[in-house]
Amino acid sequence: MLVIGGGFAGLWATRGLASAPVRVTLLDRTNHHLFQPLLYQVATAGLSAPDIAAPLRHILRRQRNATVLLGEAVAIDASTRSVRLADGTCLDYDTLVVATGATHAYFGHDDWAAHAPGLKTLDDALLIRRRVLSAFEAAEREDDPAQRAAWLSFVVIGGGPTGVELAGTLAEIARHTLKDEFRRADPRHAQVHLVEAGPRVLAAMPEALSASARAQLERLGVLVHTGTPVTVVHPEGVRIGDTPLAARTVLWAAGVAASPLAESLGVPRDRAGRVPVLPDLSVPGLPDIFIAGDLAQVAQADARPVPGVAPAAKQMGAHVARAIRARLSGRAAPAFRYRDYGNLATIGRMSGVVEVGRLRLSGVLAWWFWLTAHLFFLIGFRNRLVVLIEWAWSYFSYQRGARIILGSGKPESRP
Amino acid sequence: MLVIGGGFAGLWATRGLASAPVRVTLLDRTNHHLFQPLLYQVATAGLSAPDIAAPLRHILRRQRNATVLLGEAVAIDASTRSVRLADGTCLDYDTLVVATGATHAYFGHDDWAAHAPGLKTLDDALLIRRRVLSAFEAAEREDDPAQRAAWLSFVVIGGGPTGVELAGTLAEIARHTLKDEFRRADPRHAQVHLVEAGPRVLAAMPEALSASARAQLERLGVLVHTGTPVTVVHPEGVRIGDTPLAARTVLWAAGVAASPLAESLGVPRDRAGRVPVLPDLSVPGLPDIFIAGDLAQVAQADARPVPGVAPAAKQMGAHVARAIRARLSGRAAPAFRYRDYGNLATIGRMSGVVEVGRLRLSGVLAWWFWLTAHLFFLIGFRNRLVVLIEWAWSYFSYQRGARIILGSGKPESRP
Repeated sequence: MLVIGGGFAGLWATRGLASAPVRVTLLDRTNHHLFQPLLYQVATAGLSAPDIAAPLRHILRRQRNATVLLGEAVAIDASTRSVRLADGTCLDYDTLVVATGATHAYFGHDDWAAHAPGLKTLDDALLIRRRVLSAFEAAEREDDPAQRAAWLSFVVIGGGPTGVELAGTLAEIARHTLKDEFRRADPRHAQVHLVEAGPRVLAAMPEALSASARAQLERLGVLVHTGTPVTVVHPEGVRIGDTPLAARTVLWAAGVAASPLAESLGVPRDRAGRVPVLPDLSVPGLPDIFIAGDLAQVAQADARPVPGVAPAAKQMGAHVARAIRARLSGRAAPAFRYRDYGNLATIGRMSGVVEVGRLRLSGVLAWWFWLTAHLFFLIGFRNRLVVLIEWAWSYFSYQRGARIILGSGKPESRP
Repeated sequence: MLVIGGGFAGLWATRGLASAPVRVTLLDRTNHHLFQPLLYQVATAGLSAPDIAAPLRHILRRQRNATVLLGEAVAIDASTRSVRLADGTCLDYDTLVVATGATHAYFGHDDWAAHAPGLKTLDDALLIRRRVLSAFEAAEREDDPAQRAAWLSFVVIGGGPTGVELAGTLAEIARHTLKDEFRRADPRHAQVHLVEAGPRVLAAMPEALSASARAQLERLGVLVHTGTPVTVVHPEGVRIGDTPLAARTVLWAAGVAASPLAESLGVPRDRAGRVPVLPDLSVPGLPDIFIAGDLAQVAQADARPVPGVAPAAKQMGAHVARAIRARLSGRAAPAFRYRDYGNLATIGRMSGVVEVGRLRLSGVLAWWFWLTAHLFFLIGFRNRLVVLIEWAWSYFSYQRGARIILGSGKPESRP
């Protein structure tokens, strides 16, 4: 049994096989499981990288039938039942679970990637942190007012949960965290733009909550642009529709595409690269291969697709384990059913929106709900305690505990 | 007034001028003050980078006469009183404090740097963390027993405090932290070698404490080699005297050289590149330039040189501020006197040695003393609290909270 990917789907699939009479190998290209819902806080210097990540082999140390391997899968050969790794070696499998998730997509503008980094891994988060903090440093050194304004302009592309969280937190950093620390460039003059091509932010939420989120963003000082796409991204800024905007820091939260590993399966994929799977989450025509998480395209009872969120990935992972256990005992695998527990998004200090069943919250109550839920789901006692302290300290001090530029330390020279 | 370097010396010099009628610019190539005595804990995955670093401009936010700039000084022109930065711009000064410290020195073997990284910055620490954790991962994937043993062999070159701390902690990681997490390579078979060319480890300590430190290291499982230098370092291992040793992870804690910035002063320097300074810490012939910290070569009353340790750097920084204030009010600058508060080193779990005045401690008492002293001196309430929790958690769980491989995530291909 081979599981590729140690995210929510892959980890939950592995754990679900703990008492099954199989040996499970979990392969990941990093050594850690990442709690992605809090990744934007590492990018915005609120948390340290280790606060939201735990070593996979530590999580699975007591599961004696599980082996963790560090390596990157580059191709699946279903005919020989083997997976080729980036270092040239191969791993054989009898049953394969592919849970490699999604990556950023620039909709055919791959040259934008260098100017507008996306947020999927810890390394992405540290790159964004470096660019954001370095932009304020560059503004402080800049004498030309137009250039200084460009360094103090931030554009977040994409009005989904990640874009909203990033924009809200950037506004908070400029207004509160960095206040009084600069002598020449006042961070409170920074402009944070959130650009959404569709008609509203948080499109997965009911309209009233989208409107509330927008109002909360604007109260935090974010300039929200909806209904117009970004048409150009270059090192000096962007173009929103036909309007140019000078901004030295542009972040990408707009599009995801499924992991390219699925290409090598040679089965049909949808426009986003996801693989339509059977109700038990196995691949049509390849019964030994299951797909779980953001890479799977599966419909809910009402025909809407299961969304690419953490709870869905966990449920799919657990379901794959159930399906494999059923097969092992000669029973038919059950069909996957997504249980939608709702939608949460935080926006900034004491702001957020929540939709859980019929419950709708916004503002400070939504923010508390979000905080509690995320602390609860964070893996590992130590992480929870440290994150709780970081949050409490940030709340009372308006500070952020991880304002450390790693890497070059200098504002990067952009290509 | 321009201060180059935001380490202990530069920061204490800047703070010492808070109430003086001057404007101070503090220039550093990173955005943070680093608490270097705990850097080895970031390298060995015990602490996160932000736990031991604080943004310089946050530390100095209330000192209204201080401006912090991010930039790298590359040359000092004493004739025009200006400092050239890496980006080509210049900063003028009336009085200059050079506190750029020291870097690793490979004694003419600069090609060793790629195979045996040293530990001076947070980026160094994250590189070492990545190599150490990746070595265990590579051992788990390796089928050849000799290769696996080479991945599980670690060599620390240099028996000073940093080398002792690194070696002791590596042994603890192999024996306790990673226990039960690997299925093929047993981390408890790892070998940690500490190589010191001189006759004993911790040569700055009394002989009895050196002997105790060695015994404590050996009890933790470290193989201590003294009296023989490392003569070759290559990607597959080292040669200790004439004896080859296969080891894929080699760390450098042997030599430091003063920052090369002092070259551009055109004044005499000692063999380690340090500048001999006058009793008030100004440069002979250049009364407007002071040097503080590891870059200064200054003698104690008994003619021994002031050591390159954090308390000495702080004292020199504070002294430079006093000397500048004295000059401003027309008094003669006092002579610097080093107050030696003693020597501490930790070795591993509940092991350490302490010499403070006539007090000598070793073992668990020394370890507690070290812990308390380092928590006390760590800057910032938040850092202290988070570090205290990380330590308490590590102590009881034998775990380390920052076991996250950042960067490539794959064992690096060495040159």
